[in-house]
Amino acid sequence: MYNAPLVLARQMSESMIKLGIVGGTGYTGVELMRLLARHPQADLRVITSRSEQGRAVADLFPNLRNLVDLEFSAPDPAAYGDCDLVFFATPNTTAMTQAEQLLDSGIKVIDLAADFRIQHIPTWERVYGATHDCPQLVEEAVYGLPELNREAIRNARLVANPGCYPTSVILALLPLLEHNAIEPGSIIADCKSGASGAGRKADVGTAFCEVTESVKAYAVGTHRHQPEIQSILQTVDADAELVFIPHLMPMIRGIHATVYADARNGGDGLQSLFENYYQNEPFVDVMPSRSHPETRSVRGANVCRLAAHYLPAQNKIVVLSVEDNLVKGAAGQAIQNM
Amino acid sequence: MYNAPLVLARQMSESMIKLGIVGGTGYTGVELMRLLARHPQADLRVITSRSEQGRAVADLFPNLRNLVDLEFSAPDPAAYGDCDLVFFATPNTTAMTQAEQLLDSGIKVIDLAADFRIQHIPTWERVYGATHDCPQLVEEAVYGLPELNREAIRNARLVANPGCYPTSVILALLPLLEHNAIEPGSIIADCKSGASGAGRKADVGTAFCEVTESVKAYAVGTHRHQPEIQSILQTVDADAELVFIPHLMPMIRGIHATVYADARNGGDGLQSLFENYYQNEPFVDVMPSRSHPETRSVRGANVCRLAAHYLPAQNKIVVLSVEDNLVKGAAGQAIQNM
Amino acid sequence: MYNAPLVLARQMSESMIKLGIVGGTGYTGVELMRLLARHPQADLRVITSRSEQGRAVADLFPNLRNLVDLEFSAPDPAAYGDCDLVFFATPNTTAMTQAEQLLDSGIKVIDLAADFRIQHIPTWERVYGATHDCPQLVEEAVYGLPELNREAIRNARLVANPGCYPTSVILALLPLLEHNAIEPGSIIADCKSGASGAGRKADVGTAFCEVTESVKAYAVGTHRHQPEIQSILQTVDADAELVFIPHLMPMIRGIHATVYADARNGGDGLQSLFENYYQNEPFVDVMPSRSHPETRSVRGANVCRLAAHYLPAQNKIVVLSVEDNLVKGAAGQAIQNM
Amino acid sequence: MYNAPLVLARQMSESMIKLGIVGGTGYTGVELMRLLARHPQADLRVITSRSEQGRAVADLFPNLRNLVDLEFSAPDPAAYGDCDLVFFATPNTTAMTQAEQLLDSGIKVIDLAADFRIQHIPTWERVYGATHDCPQLVEEAVYGLPELNREAIRNARLVANPGCYPTSVILALLPLLEHNAIEPGSIIADCKSGASGAGRKADVGTAFCEVTESVKAYAVGTHRHQPEIQSILQTVDADAELVFIPHLMPMIRGIHATVYADARNGGDGLQSLFENYYQNEPFVDVMPSRSHPETRSVRGANVCRLAAHYLPAQNKIVVLSVEDNLVKGAAGQAIQNM
Repeated sequence: MYNAPLVLARQMSESMIKLGIVGGTGYTGVELMRLLARHPQADLRVITSRSEQGRAVADLFPNLRNLVDLEFSAPDPAAYGDCDLVFFATPNTTAMTQAEQLLDSGIKVIDLAADFRIQHIPTWERVYGATHDCPQLVEEAVYGLPELNREAIRNARLVANPGCYPTSVILALLPLLEHNAIEPGSIIADCKSGASGAGRKADVGTAFCEVTESVKAYAVGTHRHQPEIQSILQTVDADAELVFIPHLMPMIRGIHATVYADARNGGDGLQSLFENYYQNEPFVDVMPSRSHPETRSVRGANVCRLAAHYLPAQNKIVVLSVEDNLVKGAAGQAIQNM
Repeated sequence: MYNAPLVLARQMSESMIKLGIVGGTGYTGVELMRLLARHPQADLRVITSRSEQGRAVADLFPNLRNLVDLEFSAPDPAAYGDCDLVFFATPNTTAMTQAEQLLDSGIKVIDLAADFRIQHIPTWERVYGATHDCPQLVEEAVYGLPELNREAIRNARLVANPGCYPTSVILALLPLLEHNAIEPGSIIADCKSGASGAGRKADVGTAFCEVTESVKAYAVGTHRHQPEIQSILQTVDADAELVFIPHLMPMIRGIHATVYADARNGGDGLQSLFENYYQNEPFVDVMPSRSHPETRSVRGANVCRLAAHYLPAQNKIVVLSVEDNLVKGAAGQAIQNM
Repeated sequence: MYNAPLVLARQMSESMIKLGIVGGTGYTGVELMRLLARHPQADLRVITSRSEQGRAVADLFPNLRNLVDLEFSAPDPAAYGDCDLVFFATPNTTAMTQAEQLLDSGIKVIDLAADFRIQHIPTWERVYGATHDCPQLVEEAVYGLPELNREAIRNARLVANPGCYPTSVILALLPLLEHNAIEPGSIIADCKSGASGAGRKADVGTAFCEVTESVKAYAVGTHRHQPEIQSILQTVDADAELVFIPHLMPMIRGIHATVYADARNGGDGLQSLFENYYQNEPFVDVMPSRSHPETRSVRGANVCRLAAHYLPAQNKIVVLSVEDNLVKGAAGQAIQNM
Repeated sequence: MYNAPLVLARQMSESMIKLGIVGGTGYTGVELMRLLARHPQADLRVITSRSEQGRAVADLFPNLRNLVDLEFSAPDPAAYGDCDLVFFATPNTTAMTQAEQLLDSGIKVIDLAADFRIQHIPTWERVYGATHDCPQLVEEAVYGLPELNREAIRNARLVANPGCYPTSVILALLPLLEHNAIEPGSIIADCKSGASGAGRKADVGTAFCEVTESVKAYAVGTHRHQPEIQSILQTVDADAELVFIPHLMPMIRGIHATVYADARNGGDGLQSLFENYYQNEPFVDVMPSRSHPETRSVRGANVCRLAAHYLPAQNKIVVLSVEDNLVKGAAGQAIQNM
C-alpha cells in the first residue's frame, strides 16, 4: 500500500495545532484519532497508554493503518512538552491528577471524562465515590458545550467536555428553558444509548451475546449523568428538576433522548422557537415539524438532530434528540471545543 | 429425517381443541403455529392464506419442517366447519367481516388484530380510518387480558386479543391504578419495540439496513395503541390520561415499556403492592426491588416481567415492563385466552 | 407469579434420570438447564460453580426464574453422590481430573468439553498444550455423535460430546465418505459461527462493539477443531484430509458450514444419497435439492439441517449444513446422548 | 443550523469535475453522494430518480441534510448536458439504453451496474436474461478495477465498475495468478456479504427480522458474479476456474472473501509476493503475515485489506480479503475511476 496521498494530506503547516491524547485505547480515544487524522489543522504528536505502551496504534486499531503512524508511549507528562493542547480520554479521576501540571506548562487541557464537569464538589464526590484531587481547578473549568458556553470555551485553559447523555438532553431543553416554555420541575429524559457508551473493556455485561437482541434500563435513580445534567439545567433555570432513565440498546453508536415536559403556553411557536434558537449553530439541526430523527442519520457525524412535538390532549412537549455518542457526545465535541 | 417421535407427540385425544388460523403468513401466525405445535391440547386443523394457498406451511417457514404438516388453504369460511375455535392473525378490518358467520356456527373466535379492542365505535372508526362492519359484536367482545378479565374470557364467544404495547403498559399500571397509588393524569409510557411488531411485509422501512444500528421514535401523537391503552385504563380509573411514545429498536422480538407516573403516597409498599397483586398470576413475574429486566429474559416465553422503582427526589414511580411482543404480546396471550 | 403449573410439570417419577451439571455459568451450562427444565425425564439435582457458589441460578439467569429453583453449589464430588449422570460444562482440562472418581462411583459422565474427544494422546496434548491427566479413560470414551455411534453411546459410561463445528461438518460429510462419493483429500470446510461459540466471559474480543457489524476469519491453520474433525473423518476414510477455516459472525447462535469436495462420480444420486442415509435420524433434516438452509431455522432446536449441491462445471459437491451451536452443537446433543 | 462552513467547503473552482448521477435512491447512489459531498474536486450538479422526482435528496436521506442541496430530477438525458461525467447507479439493463447518447455528447460514463462488465455478449445475455441493447459499446468499455487496468481507465470514455464480490475476489487472486503461484483450476471463493449488497428495496427477504441473527448461502451455482469474476481472471490466466458461493451476513456493510487455491510452489515468499505486488497501490492494504482482517476495519473506507496464509499440511493458500461493499466494492471505486 502506497501512502503518498496520505503523507501529502498530513503536510504540516505553521497554523496547525500540536496535540496529545492521554489514554488512547478506549472508544473515545480511537474516535478522536479517526477524526483528527482527517482534520486539516490537527497535528497529533503523542498518544499514551500504560497498557499498550510501545505498540503501534494501527496494530491495535487496524482501521487506522496508513492513517496514524504513532506508537503508544508511556503516560509521562514530559511527553507532552511539545503540545499546544492535550485531550484526556481516560477513565474518571485520572485527569484531575495530571491537569494542573500541564496547565502550568502552558498546555491547554480538554478532559473527556467527568473530573471537571460538576461545579459543586460535594456532589461530585458523592456521585463519583472519590475525593477530588484538584478542586481549585473545577471552578476555572468551562463546561464544554459550545451551544451554551461558546465565548468562555474560546478563552478557557481547561474544558470539561460534557458526557454523551448530557449533550443530547441539554440541547433538547435549552430553547425551552431559556424561553420559559415548560414547567421546569416536570422534565423526564428517557434515553437510549448504544453499547459503545459503556466503553471498551473486558466485561461480561457488554459481551455481544448479552447485549444484542435485547433492551434494558439500567442505573435507574443512580446514574451519574443525572446530577451533571440537572446542575447545568439549573444554571439556566434554577427550578429545573430531572427524571433521567438510561437504557442500553443493541447497537454500537447513537443516543436517542426522548424528553418530556409540561408545556407552559401550549405548543404554538414551538417549531420556530427551536429553529431560531439554533439558526447559527453549525452542529445542531432542527428538523421540520412532525419529524422523527433516527440515530443512524448522525452516525459518525458531529451533529445533534432535534425534533419538537406538542401533544395537545396532555399538554406535553416531547423533544426527540439524536446524536452519535462518540462524536457530538464525546470526541467530535472535544474537537469542536479545540 | 425420521419423524416418528413427532407423530407420536401429535397423537390426538378426545380432550383436544380443534383449531383454525385465518391468515398464517405473518409473524403472529407463524408464532401461533410454533407454540401450538408443542401444546398438548391443541389440534391445529386448518390454516388459510390467500397469497400462499396450496403451499406447504413448512416450505414457507422451514423452522416448522416436521412440526406442522399442513398446507395453506383458501380463506373459505367452510374450511373451519370442523373447528372449535378460530384465531384471526389477519390485518386489521378482516375479522370484523367474518367473525359473525363463525360465531353463528358455534365456533369461538379470538381476533389478534384490532377490530374488537375499542368499545367506543366512533373512536375506533377515527383511529382505524374505516367504518366498522360489525359494531353489534364489539360490545359482546371481551378484551383478552386474562390478568384483568379472566372470568369474562372464560365465558366469551369472541375475544379481542390486546395489542403488544397495551399488554406491557397495562400490566405495569393495573396495580397502581387499582390501589390509587399514582396521579392518573400523569402517566407517560415510553415504549421500545423490536421490529417484528411491524409485521412481516415487503417494506423499505423495515429492511435490515434501515433498522439495524439505529433507534427512532415513530407515530408521536398518532399511534393507534394510545386510545386502546387509555380506554382500558379508564375502565379502572376514569381519570387516566396517557402520553404514549413508541420507538423502534434494532432487534426482532421484545418490548420494553418504561412507565412514569407521579406517586400519590410516596414509594412505601410499592414492591409488596406489585407482588401481592400478581401473586396468583402464572404469566406475570414481579422481580425483586432495584431490578432491571431485560427483554432477552422473556424471549420466546409467555411472561411479562415487571420491576417497580421509586425516585424520591422527583416523587416519581417508574415501572419497567418487558415481554416478547409475539408471545405475551400476541400469540402466547391468544393461547392463554384459548 | 404463581408457579403451580410449573411445579406440577416437574412432578417426579421413578423413571426420571437424576442429573448433575459441573460448571453451569457458561452458555452451554445455561442452555443445558433451559432444555432440561422442560424435559419430561430429567430431574436436575445439582449444579456447581466455583465462582457463583451460593447464588440462585435464576438470579444469574433471569430467563430461568420459576423454571430452575437450584442454587449453585461448590464443586465437591460428594455433591453428585445421588446422581445417575453428570454433565461437564466446564472449560477444557477440567473433566479429565474428575471423571474417573465419578465413574468409579457408578455415575455416567458426558463431557461437553474436549478432554476425551481425540483418541491420539500426543495429538491432544499438542493441540491443547497440556499433559493429559487421564489417558486410560480416553480409549473407553465414546465420541458422542449419535448419527455415527448410536449403539456405542447407549452402552457407554463416558461420552465425549463433540464440538460445535465438528457436528456440523461431520454430518455434512458422513454420507459422502461412507459411499466414496468424494475425493477424501479435497475437503474444505468454511465455517461461520455465532459469538456464543466463544463462551460467556469477560473479553474485549467478544464485546458487542467488536463483534457486531463485522465478519472475520480466525485461527486460520491453528483451530483445535481441525484435528478433532479430521480424526473422526479418518475413522470413516483413512485418507480424509481437511482444510478448516472458522469465521466469527455478528449473531448469537448458529453455525453455517459450507463444505466443498471434489466429486468422484458426478452429482447423480446426490440428493437420494443424503435422504436415504439420514431417513431414520430424528435430528438431521435433509432439505429438498437446491435449498439454502438458514441458521435461524434451527435456532433453539436440536436439528442439523443439510442441503447438498453439485456444481457440474467444476465437478464440486457443496454441502450446506446449519445447526444451533448451543443445541445440536452442544447441549442438545448432550441430552440426545443422555 | 447555520451551514456557512459547508457552503464554503463547496466553493466551486475551475478544476472541479461536473457530475451527474442517474438513479440516486439506492444504497450505491446515496453512498456516492455521501462521498462526493466531501470530495474536493467533485461538483455534483444533477441527480435523477423517476420515483422520487421533485423531492429533496436530504428529505429522503436525512444524513445528507446540509450536505446535499439538490432535488431529484426527472431522468431526462438533457439534464446532464452540463456534466463532464455521469454515474449510473441504476438497476442492471438501464445504462445500456442511455450510455451511447451521453457518450455522443462528450460526457464520460461510469456504470455501477453490470451492463458492460462481461465482454462475451452471449454469456452476458444468458446470465442477465436479456438482450443486450448496446453490444457495440461493450468492447470499448474498460473494466474499472484500477489495480488491473489503471492506464486504460485513465483514457476510457466508458467504465464498467466492478461488482462488489468481484473486487474482493480478484484483488485476492491477481498476485497469485500473475506469478503462477496457484493451480488456476482449483480456486474456491467463499464470500460473505452484508445485506446492503442486496440493494435498497421493499422485499420480505431483506427485512430486518429475516436477516438478523441468521446466516445463509444463496444462489449456489447460479450467482451472476461467478461469470464476471471468472472472465476477468481468465484475462490473467486462461485456465482459471472458479467455485463461488455467496453468503448473506447479518450486517449492513462489508464483504469477507475467503479464497482457497492449491499452491504450486509451497508457501515461501507468499507474504512478499503480496507486499510487492501492491506496494504502489493506495487502496489495497496487505496486512502482516498471520493476520485476520475484519470487515469493520474498512467500514466506510475505500480500502481492500488482504491477508495471505499458507497451510502446509494441505498445501493450500488461503487469502482473506475484506472491503466495504458500498465503497471499494461500488461507490468508492467509481470515484477512484473518476
